[in-house]
Amino acid sequence: TGGCNSQTGRVASSVFFYFVCASDVCMTFLPCYCIFVCTDLLPASGGEKVTKEFLHELLNILLGYICKSSRRSGKVLDFHHPHQLKEGLEGFSLQLTDKPETLEQILVDCRDTLKYGVNTGHPRFFNQLSSGLDLIGLAGEWLTSTANSNMFTYEVSPVFILMEEVLLKKMQGIVGWSDDEGDGIFCPGGTISNLYSILVARYYFYPEVKTRGMRALPQLAIFTSEHSHYSVKKSAAVLGMGSENVLMVKCDESGKMIPVELESSIVAAEERGLVPFYVNATAGTTVYGAFDPFNDIADICHGHNLWMHVDAAWGGGLLMSDRHRMKLQGIERAWSVTWNPHKMMGVPLQCSVILIKKRGLLQDCNELGAEYLFQRDKPYDVSYDTGDKSIQCGRHVDVFKFWLMWKAKGSEGFGSQVNKCLENAEYLYDQLQRRTGFELVFKNKPEHSNVCFWYIPPTMRGLPPGPDRDTRLHQVAPRIKHRMMEQGSVLIGYQPLGDKVNFFRCVFSNPATQQEDVDFLLDEITRLGNDL
Amino acid sequence: TGGCNSQTGRVASSVFFYFVCASDVCMTFLPCYCIFVCTDLLPASGGEKVTKEFLHELLNILLGYICKSSRRSGKVLDFHHPHQLKEGLEGFSLQLTDKPETLEQILVDCRDTLKYGVNTGHPRFFNQLSSGLDLIGLAGEWLTSTANSNMFTYEVSPVFILMEEVLLKKMQGIVGWSDDEGDGIFCPGGTISNLYSILVARYYFYPEVKTRGMRALPQLAIFTSEHSHYSVKKSAAVLGMGSENVLMVKCDESGKMIPVELESSIVAAEERGLVPFYVNATAGTTVYGAFDPFNDIADICHGHNLWMHVDAAWGGGLLMSDRHRMKLQGIERAWSVTWNPHKMMGVPLQCSVILIKKRGLLQDCNELGAEYLFQRDKPYDVSYDTGDKSIQCGRHVDVFKFWLMWKAKGSEGFGSQVNKCLENAEYLYDQLQRRTGFELVFKNKPEHSNVCFWYIPPTMRGLPPGPDRDTRLHQVAPRIKHRMMEQGSVLIGYQPLGDKVNFFRCVFSNPATQQEDVDFLLDEITRLGNDL
Repeated sequence: TGGCNSQTGRVASSVFFYFVCASDVCMTFLPCYCIFVCTDLLPASGGEKVTKEFLHELLNILLGYICKSSRRSGKVLDFHHPHQLKEGLEGFSLQLTDKPETLEQILVDCRDTLKYGVNTGHPRFFNQLSSGLDLIGLAGEWLTSTANSNMFTYEVSPVFILMEEVLLKKMQGIVGWSDDEGDGIFCPGGTISNLYSILVARYYFYPEVKTRGMRALPQLAIFTSEHSHYSVKKSAAVLGMGSENVLMVKCDESGKMIPVELESSIVAAEERGLVPFYVNATAGTTVYGAFDPFNDIADICHGHNLWMHVDAAWGGGLLMSDRHRMKLQGIERAWSVTWNPHKMMGVPLQCSVILIKKRGLLQDCNELGAEYLFQRDKPYDVSYDTGDKSIQCGRHVDVFKFWLMWKAKGSEGFGSQVNKCLENAEYLYDQLQRRTGFELVFKNKPEHSNVCFWYIPPTMRGLPPGPDRDTRLHQVAPRIKHRMMEQGSVLIGYQPLGDKVNFFRCVFSNPATQQEDVDFLLDEITRLGNDL
Repeated sequence: TGGCNSQTGRVASSVFFYFVCASDVCMTFLPCYCIFVCTDLLPASGGEKVTKEFLHELLNILLGYICKSSRRSGKVLDFHHPHQLKEGLEGFSLQLTDKPETLEQILVDCRDTLKYGVNTGHPRFFNQLSSGLDLIGLAGEWLTSTANSNMFTYEVSPVFILMEEVLLKKMQGIVGWSDDEGDGIFCPGGTISNLYSILVARYYFYPEVKTRGMRALPQLAIFTSEHSHYSVKKSAAVLGMGSENVLMVKCDESGKMIPVELESSIVAAEERGLVPFYVNATAGTTVYGAFDPFNDIADICHGHNLWMHVDAAWGGGLLMSDRHRMKLQGIERAWSVTWNPHKMMGVPLQCSVILIKKRGLLQDCNELGAEYLFQRDKPYDVSYDTGDKSIQCGRHVDVFKFWLMWKAKGSEGFGSQVNKCLENAEYLYDQLQRRTGFELVFKNKPEHSNVCFWYIPPTMRGLPPGPDRDTRLHQVAPRIKHRMMEQGSVLIGYQPLGDKVNFFRCVFSNPATQQEDVDFLLDEITRLGNDL
């Protein structure tokens, strides 16, 4: 079926072949996709050949993208406005029709989709807490989608269900829980993980809520810091608890919750007739990367008999590093922990975990025992049918890529990766102090890989602090970002926070990033903002 | 870098190569993975070569699995008990260590993971509503994980955000809504879709619930049929409404909600002081595949000013077929619709949608406006930053595989696929009536692809109806299923329902399934159950 090094060929089936694969690894001959359509692929009878060739060609497209992504010479993005993409750039049409396209067109669509997307694996993409492209994780995702299974029962996902158990136990041990405590589940993102923690905490104190609802309960109150993630408020709204019953506790200047403020908030809430039951502490806040003082918070929770949750969606990864894990001291006293391996550990999206210390609560809180899924008369140990622990029914397999990465790196590999990201943050912190025109948002060395700073253009450097300067400074980051997006050379986020006007937040979670990329970022900000 | 047809080789880097790829398409030379580890892959400097070879070898493993999956001679599963897999079968260890494994071992782990899993793409896997392995969908998933992006903003996912808009509009049009109505979002599974519908309905009638919680509201009541999915109750529990405030409406013998029963349930609830606000109707119930009478239900909802939701997670796919879409007549009158393309349309897991008729509600209900993500001072139309519509923060890209499949099949291709699955169901229904020893659970021709039946072993065929026969019959399906799992030849689900003892439910959603597979299923049940 075709040999090497010839440019054209003809086979018995009289399909024309031509040479399209330029990879230096794989020299193949591909059918003329202009005549094949999806119904020629498996399960079509005799579809093996077209299937293999189609997927090989797809692999070449993906490999081309992967290789380009890791090159600094390539762009991070090629920005177009929504109306431009909708009009159909260079023949790339998003519209869907009644008639099928050929496989050739499908491959072109794949190329175009990648072309107009954002290269989140580029070493100069600093825009989000999740970045990079781990190739073992990617291999895991490809296998997961090939297996196309679902996490509800052992019956359909025996291997993945056991891998989930292995990883949850591993993570519980790393948090510091003993062998006879700990439960959990993989779920679709950190917000849902945090929602689980409030849901389970509410059930723990008031199990009647499951059948009777919130009207059977007193008015509950939740405590979280003003720097914490908005998912606490969002969850309270979803759970019918009301976002105004989430009380925001003051932070110190580096973004850590102030324990005496927590204590006084609790007392004040009780005086207003609310019933405190849950405190969210954060390990790695979204903007500053701050770690709350967990032991102090645990003492207060213990004193008031409150559920203590730690949102370590972003900071959990630091538990993998011997150098940094002491920043999470006291997390072992939490009753639940959110931890997103898809952030600091570089696992492909999506991979998020909720850990619950007390076993059985998750099941009791959520189970409804649907008999078409969770029959008790199965021929195996049905405690492995973990689907009824979940608020979902079908649940995507998010565990395999993580398991495979752990196999490939070992715990130590994750530790080195985290250390490297934090070294980049320290390097940026040092550079910001050395270079002209940059100002740190908070003075202390960052605890996580978040570094927050302003760029002050030359014309603003002499201005006295005050509302006029603030108004001008507020516009600097958005304008630079706008130019950055147009140039596509680098991408970084910005936001205001409290009384602070728009500032840049740089985060490192991609082990591909080197010091030269940090230098490039600062050079580029200077170049793009110099005339503002 | 290696030529064709030689068995060994040596290159400048003095890495040994050997021939491992037996595919008839791609003849490649692969490095000796026993010396390479994950840090040799990209982004390692010079890692392109190892990366390409590693992913090519992975592709060969996945292709081997895909080809085997579609062959009837292969097993559906190779069952092992949890303790067997945990002990480490044939060296396949699930345990994780501190040290890294080689890439060679990683590839072996990939092979083993597939080997001990369940082959959900096999033409004789009838166990779940989702089955099959669509290769275009698979290609879409591989690209999605390579792009490794997130749905929160246009900034990071321009193409995927626009594809979501295109698909939501398409689906709204197919449901029957006009161009100036319709909103929605892709979310992680049908249960979450149904949860969204209740959440948004509650907000529509009582917007104060978002800030003040359920205690500020009267005691609300939800109505759904006794055959509907358990997610309605689960959502009520999560949302703080209480599962006992979900009132179950009686169905007729084919599993359809009886409208007069709905009317009287509403009146009875009001008399008890509850406030009805939401009715869930089902298009394709989980077990029977029944369609509720949507127009009658819509009339009742209109009369009482209730939110009408249609859970078309399973039945929505029939809208794609000119032959079957009339079974969903009246769905256009719903205020929200759940539709899972990952079920009847064969999209790889996970792909689920909630559609909301009234625009803006989803955003108003869920937005919290986190400034680090949803800045208003961006250089593009920020109405495309759809992430604040979601109850998630990060959100997996579930749309691309679906978009790509639509391109490849056209609307017509989905229609043919649905027709074929329903033809298989009709064939099974006919065969059950012709063969000895089978009994239908309900007499009418199935409306969806669900076919429910008992197998009556020869020794039971003369028994009179009654508790003794029921007790024995209840054990037949589990025993046959047990043997099926051990043999691995075919997989089908069973459950009791109401006063009916355990029966088989066969569902068809895999277009790979042919009439010969239906025959095989019945032969196999007879063979395995003959001596019971």
